[in-house]
Amino acid sequence: MLKKIKPGQFLLISYALVDLMGTILLMLPLASTESGSTSLIEAWFTATSALTVTGLTIVTTASHWTTFGHVVIMVLMQIGGLGLMAIATITLTMLGLRIHLGHRLLIAQDRNYFDMYGVVRLVLNIFVLTLFIEGTGAALLGFLFPDLWENGPIEGLLFITFHAISAFNGAGFDLTGQSLEPYRYNIGINLVIMTMITLGSLGYVVLQELFLVRKWHRLSLHSRMVLLVTGAIILVGSIFYFVSEFHRTLAGAPWADKIIISVFQAATRTAGFTNVPVTAWNEPFIFLMIIMMFIGASPGSVGGGVKTTTFGTVVLAVWSIVRGKKAVVLFEREIAQESVTKGFTVVVMAGMLVVVSTLLIMTVEGLPFMPVLFEVVSAMATVGLSMGITTQLSPFGLIVIGILMFVGRIGILTVVVVLAGTEKRRFQYMKEDILIG
Amino acid sequence: MLKKIKPGQFLLISYALVDLMGTILLMLPLASTESGSTSLIEAWFTATSALTVTGLTIVTTASHWTTFGHVVIMVLMQIGGLGLMAIATITLTMLGLRIHLGHRLLIAQDRNYFDMYGVVRLVLNIFVLTLFIEGTGAALLGFLFPDLWENGPIEGLLFITFHAISAFNGAGFDLTGQSLEPYRYNIGINLVIMTMITLGSLGYVVLQELFLVRKWHRLSLHSRMVLLVTGAIILVGSIFYFVSEFHRTLAGAPWADKIIISVFQAATRTAGFTNVPVTAWNEPFIFLMIIMMFIGASPGSVGGGVKTTTFGTVVLAVWSIVRGKKAVVLFEREIAQESVTKGFTVVVMAGMLVVVSTLLIMTVEGLPFMPVLFEVVSAMATVGLSMGITTQLSPFGLIVIGILMFVGRIGILTVVVVLAGTEKRRFQYMKEDILIG
Ligand SMILES: [K+]
Ligand SMILES: [K+]
Repeated sequence: MLKKIKPGQFLLISYALVDLMGTILLMLPLASTESGSTSLIEAWFTATSALTVTGLTIVTTASHWTTFGHVVIMVLMQIGGLGLMAIATITLTMLGLRIHLGHRLLIAQDRNYFDMYGVVRLVLNIFVLTLFIEGTGAALLGFLFPDLWENGPIEGLLFITFHAISAFNGAGFDLTGQSLEPYRYNIGINLVIMTMITLGSLGYVVLQELFLVRKWHRLSLHSRMVLLVTGAIILVGSIFYFVSEFHRTLAGAPWADKIIISVFQAATRTAGFTNVPVTAWNEPFIFLMIIMMFIGASPGSVGGGVKTTTFGTVVLAVWSIVRGKKAVVLFEREIAQESVTKGFTVVVMAGMLVVVSTLLIMTVEGLPFMPVLFEVVSAMATVGLSMGITTQLSPFGLIVIGILMFVGRIGILTVVVVLAGTEKRRFQYMKEDILIG
Repeated sequence: MLKKIKPGQFLLISYALVDLMGTILLMLPLASTESGSTSLIEAWFTATSALTVTGLTIVTTASHWTTFGHVVIMVLMQIGGLGLMAIATITLTMLGLRIHLGHRLLIAQDRNYFDMYGVVRLVLNIFVLTLFIEGTGAALLGFLFPDLWENGPIEGLLFITFHAISAFNGAGFDLTGQSLEPYRYNIGINLVIMTMITLGSLGYVVLQELFLVRKWHRLSLHSRMVLLVTGAIILVGSIFYFVSEFHRTLAGAPWADKIIISVFQAATRTAGFTNVPVTAWNEPFIFLMIIMMFIGASPGSVGGGVKTTTFGTVVLAVWSIVRGKKAVVLFEREIAQESVTKGFTVVVMAGMLVVVSTLLIMTVEGLPFMPVLFEVVSAMATVGLSMGITTQLSPFGLIVIGILMFVGRIGILTVVVVLAGTEKRRFQYMKEDILIG
């Protein structure tokens, strides 16, 4: 019977099972600081938010959950970030078991990698790289957070580990109760967190190449496009925030803080940490954030959205149409027509999902347009920023948002293909090096 | 020198010249009821809105303009609706001049028709059909408007002709000062106007086939798709309005009025007439209207938007991806992959235009998100509905909206191809019968 389950379905089922396990663990009275146990919907929403590294919450993480609860959330974020399949591979490797082709395919699909060869090595590298970056980040945070060790070493270690995992996996969960808002003017903390967020958003392929190749012109087309688009988005987002908030939330801050805070707002588009609350932003920047969240992180990374390469490909394609050119060219290499078509398809499908979900939630919950649109895009792109309506949602709205987080984590095309059941993936096999969606 | 100008550029230049002429005429003191002449920006915006059959206004049409001004606006709407090229062809034909191929191509591009053969005959048919529908509509309105003939036959004739032209060409200009809001419960007027709007939104190809063929299964794939999508949108829009406004704007009205008013709200998505002000609608319906306006009218019609067939093709394509099928099939005919790709491209390009324009206007004008988004989509789809911010726009905002109306009327792909200058139309030559964009 198991043999009849296709890799994609197995992936979905695995995530669902971990989600269920997380929900059950969070429902234990042991996990809640309040008397009795957390309700099913609250526990499920929190587990899903953690597993999909989204970070939307309906109960305050810091105060509602016990240390046990925090550890469950932390583990769920790490599983979601690393990817279940990567973890399974590592386990199997450590047990000395042979990994056969079917399994390799599954990992490739989960992390959206180019080929199946060297997948085991890749997964090990991912694991090492993750530990290395999270470890370094946690160590740095250990020096930076004020009053960290007051409640003893265990609490302190948990605190920095939790935030290192949350940052590198772009989850955005926090143990402060107010995200990083108390540390808005702490340059060190902001720098460490936003560096980890950005590294996590690039995807392991790019990180590995950066570690191993280091020379721009020797990087793959994929890596160069990821770096180019990520850089462009952070630049545009930072400058927009800097200019539009100069006399508002940035007023009175020293220049260094003004710059760091501005870059932080652009960097957090894939993670969901805040050092300035979303509702304090000017409305044009909130709209820009909706667009930046929609674009999202890079393929094979911990983040969601339509992906930077998809956006880059679509923009390049539009640009070549405008210039009357047939070929879509980047860095003197042509992007396959198939990738271009896939890019347009992913953008339109994600757009449709956003439109339908927004209309549905607005109608059923009676909430205003912009906060609902913001919440929907934030969930679908597994960002976790919110204009504050998460806690106002009925169970119906929470379930819609939960499903969006799930679809966002697994990828809209993968979900669609798995649901189709045929595994005849029309846009799955590419001829070129650009990963889309 | 003239030989070097390409058809597409000639089209743009012709529209621009008529626009300029309309602007000058509206700037004459003769056109304004107020002392002195209307300002350049007000005259240009009104002329552009009329020529592109959009209907957005910054001065009240009824009170600001004299009868002369009303005639100018009426003529601009008719020119915009019929298409400059159709008119030029008719003129040439009547003068007995031979129409050579270059000119035929131009008409084909303007009205987006399948082939160049029989274009002259087609244009004549368009002219006759337009006169017939507008004449019938005007005659019916002559019986329906209360107190119509009180100011004499000239005023009365102008009134019904103006509204017949405005309705069939989906312009939405009115001489009442409050659109059709004073006639909200006049079933006759609402029925006539919404029938004319809908007929105008189908495109002449479909209208001709409906007149000549009449049997569903003998209609072209194009016509069937147009009718299917138009019907579906009107149905969804009406039902949504009916249910969501039952206890609000529809409260107290008899059932017949409730139904007519609901259908009217869906029908006006391509024209911009109102019998219930936009700001009285519930917010989810306003959002649905943004989507319906974005989809727009059908190819070769007087309306804008990405077009019903584009939307239909994209939805079908997504549906076949979900079902794991390779071919996009409708009514047992396969839609060419090229049309599908063009459809996705048009949707994404229009979406990008909307996003960038919205962000620009929000930032420069400091206006809130939803009204700006609504206004931008309304302009780009040449609809003319407004949440009331048109009059609050600075000249900068008015110019952006004006350009959007222009791009919307001529078609985003045509504009892009013309600006590219190469006329190497990547997606212009199709192998199948579905018109996109
Ligand atoms: K996140
Ligand atoms: K209109």
